[in-house]
Amino acid sequence: MGGAVIVTSRRSAAVAAALDPDAASPAPERVDPAVELADLDAAFAAWWDERRGAARLSVTPVPFRDLPHWSFTRDGDLVHDSGRFFTVSGMRVRGPEGPGRDQPVILQPEIGVLGLLVKQLDGEPHVLLQAKAEPGNIDGIQLSPTVQATRSNYTRVHRGGATRHLEHFRGPGRGRVLVDSLQSEQGAWFWRKHNRNMVVEPVGEVAEHPDFRWIALRTVRRLLGVDHLVNMDTRSVLGCLPAGPVPTAAALTEPVSRAPAPPGAAVDPLSLRALTSWLIDAKQHCPWYARPVPLADVEGWTRTETEIADDAARSFRIIAVRVEAGTREVRQWAQPLLAPRRPGLAVFLCRSIGGVPRVLVRARTEPGLGDLVELGPTVQWSDDIGPAVPEEAGPFDGSALSDDPACVRFDAELSEEGGRFHRAATRYRIIEADATLPPCDAQLPDDYRWLTPHQLHALVAIGHHVNVQARSLLACLASLP
Amino acid sequence: MGGAVIVTSRRSAAVAAALDPDAASPAPERVDPAVELADLDAAFAAWWDERRGAARLSVTPVPFRDLPHWSFTRDGDLVHDSGRFFTVSGMRVRGPEGPGRDQPVILQPEIGVLGLLVKQLDGEPHVLLQAKAEPGNIDGIQLSPTVQATRSNYTRVHRGGATRHLEHFRGPGRGRVLVDSLQSEQGAWFWRKHNRNMVVEPVGEVAEHPDFRWIALRTVRRLLGVDHLVNMDTRSVLGCLPAGPVPTAAALTEPVSRAPAPPGAAVDPLSLRALTSWLIDAKQHCPWYARPVPLADVEGWTRTETEIADDAARSFRIIAVRVEAGTREVRQWAQPLLAPRRPGLAVFLCRSIGGVPRVLVRARTEPGLGDLVELGPTVQWSDDIGPAVPEEAGPFDGSALSDDPACVRFDAELSEEGGRFHRAATRYRIIEADATLPPCDAQLPDDYRWLTPHQLHALVAIGHHVNVQARSLLACLASLP
Repeated sequence: MGGAVIVTSRRSAAVAAALDPDAASPAPERVDPAVELADLDAAFAAWWDERRGAARLSVTPVPFRDLPHWSFTRDGDLVHDSGRFFTVSGMRVRGPEGPGRDQPVILQPEIGVLGLLVKQLDGEPHVLLQAKAEPGNIDGIQLSPTVQATRSNYTRVHRGGATRHLEHFRGPGRGRVLVDSLQSEQGAWFWRKHNRNMVVEPVGEVAEHPDFRWIALRTVRRLLGVDHLVNMDTRSVLGCLPAGPVPTAAALTEPVSRAPAPPGAAVDPLSLRALTSWLIDAKQHCPWYARPVPLADVEGWTRTETEIADDAARSFRIIAVRVEAGTREVRQWAQPLLAPRRPGLAVFLCRSIGGVPRVLVRARTEPGLGDLVELGPTVQWSDDIGPAVPEEAGPFDGSALSDDPACVRFDAELSEEGGRFHRAATRYRIIEADATLPPCDAQLPDDYRWLTPHQLHALVAIGHHVNVQARSLLACLASLP
Repeated sequence: MGGAVIVTSRRSAAVAAALDPDAASPAPERVDPAVELADLDAAFAAWWDERRGAARLSVTPVPFRDLPHWSFTRDGDLVHDSGRFFTVSGMRVRGPEGPGRDQPVILQPEIGVLGLLVKQLDGEPHVLLQAKAEPGNIDGIQLSPTVQATRSNYTRVHRGGATRHLEHFRGPGRGRVLVDSLQSEQGAWFWRKHNRNMVVEPVGEVAEHPDFRWIALRTVRRLLGVDHLVNMDTRSVLGCLPAGPVPTAAALTEPVSRAPAPPGAAVDPLSLRALTSWLIDAKQHCPWYARPVPLADVEGWTRTETEIADDAARSFRIIAVRVEAGTREVRQWAQPLLAPRRPGLAVFLCRSIGGVPRVLVRARTEPGLGDLVELGPTVQWSDDIGPAVPEEAGPFDGSALSDDPACVRFDAELSEEGGRFHRAATRYRIIEADATLPPCDAQLPDDYRWLTPHQLHALVAIGHHVNVQARSLLACLASLP
């Protein structure tokens, strides 16, 4: 594991394939034959290759003792000298019976900003994305939101440069806020982390910079099908945009007074109330209880000079890396990363019921979530969740793993946050459900429901209702023709 | 402190005074001259006196060693043998600079149910309330919601009786859900506690029981003006009901499909979005950080045989009591209680701006709240919050303490939860604001806003947006003519 990031030519080929309407593509159903788009895409591909060359990161695993500014406390927690950024601590999960399970967990109590600028260009909505290198990225740079900043970043704890474009998301220069909600991140790896997801239409000029590029929203959605290209934070924010085809200017970038509707307004109040009650039921009856404990108290895990790993070697490891950067805010640093041992899986089963498209969601327990339960994909696997929240074989696993080309509507391996996770990948799939699946909620196990994308988006808008894997899948769902 | 609860005749006199339209009343502006209501109230007063006699609790302070089934862990936490109910542990609060402050805190991670049954009787909405004795109550029994049960209660960890009427709030016999949301409780005393607040129209018969009584909603609202009569849990649920005058049958008890609107539907989406963004701003920029620590690690507090108290004797104490009960589920038990040293204060300043009534709310930091910040009253004082979250003299204290009869619209001393707190009282006031106060949000400090009751209710409906003191004041606001 570890080592310097390798820039593969395979990646550029995949980008080109997804963008070239004539080439064989890993996601052929998302190719749009429009000629002017192909021209735009060629420009994107050239920019991407250029940024990749400029942003090379060298990432080297090191022993924990070679992490400047980081140290282990008396309690075994791995902390930064400033007390900021994040801390590797422990979590103890207890179920209704049995001893439960301990694990390391990332504490990051500060609320960061994941912000996307959107504006009309050439008659269609464009978003301002950033070519950003992160130490844990599988492929060097990925497409990040306009702003991706922890509070420690933007208050410049590490004495790097100011966070570019942040002025459009806070303070007197803030633009028109179209989307603004607090959203959770991986409940298997973070202790109650949440970030502010924002989409803003800028007021006034947006400075140009070679790392940033306005890209048509429908192009971005097509690029979601390219492995490890659109990063988790971008997908999270895209997943907060209203459902459906690429929004028109009127729907997306008009002034906030007629902007996308707030919680509930777009959806039948009866159905939304029934859904939130169902989710509160799941939270109330969840038999698990999780609490933070000092890392030294975590049982079944051992710290060596280079890693913190579970004794069964089944779960993730905590490692340390030294990073030398090209274009990042500071040019050299070192940090811990959480390194999963294998990719996860997140699948939406979908079908049309009574002429209305629906996806099958599950009320899912993850120990690090604030309320323990949020809506997740139909199927979500991660060996790292471990036995405390056992991922038993579910009733929909067979459908989720289908390789029938007639059913596979989306299939790509995408990255989780490269600033905290080392090469964490998840295979995201959207599968047309078999007609034998019950179309009626009453025939499903009680933790599953068929939801329309509009219902899911109404729950996303409230915040803390839809987990990060499901938000990624919502972004992918919007990319489908 | 401590000792057996004394049943005062003063209390009965106050109840009678509030109910008798001709008598001098402690809250004369809430007296309704309707004759048929006075008849109903006389019946209530008779029932109340009868229940008080039947439900006498004997509460005696005891040393911690005389708490059966409770013990101190190696870490100093005070826990129940079952691992359930609640735990007295510690909380460490750190600000942007300085050493911060430690304190004990109540951990109660389970989600309980505060449920109110509502139905039409004699052409107006009635709610089913319970005469319930709690060991910390100032006045023996108080008016509790139909169901007030922790998960440990209703799963019968203490082997008491089944929770009466719970079947109307969960499972296949559940009625029509009119209100259902997760709400926080005291962020100065609880670590991230939340309860499910529900209003339900029953389907089918509701069993009768001498502890329970259907009372007209407008009578209940009038009774809010009686000191220590309507308990915190009832106020919390009442505060989740839509604003305005007593709802008509059509507004409150019709089937859920046309029931009170879900988050946002009743309020201009622009204003709701702006408000939630403002509150997210406050959460994001809050410089405090709180985390649970073992009680043994709490600095500046000392445990004796009978109490855990801060060395400066300024904050609350943790004590232990033995209880002998008449009508409670189990007839004898012992438990810890949190005992404040003095009453708190919670005040809404209100005024009509442009013909629309508004209340002045504050984005308020409390270390035990999940997101640290929720909307609170204009002024909220409690010496128990302590210096970690300093309650500096605020710009509205003078108005809040006004004793000008022309301005005082509501003024009563009400109790906080008697199952966890020992004689915890808060003086709740609603004061007509001086015309010199800025009517425009831009002229206010940035943590204050003028909100309509409808806006506040839309935020309540989302859950985790409005603190328990503000919800109590919302209930009191609805009682005003």
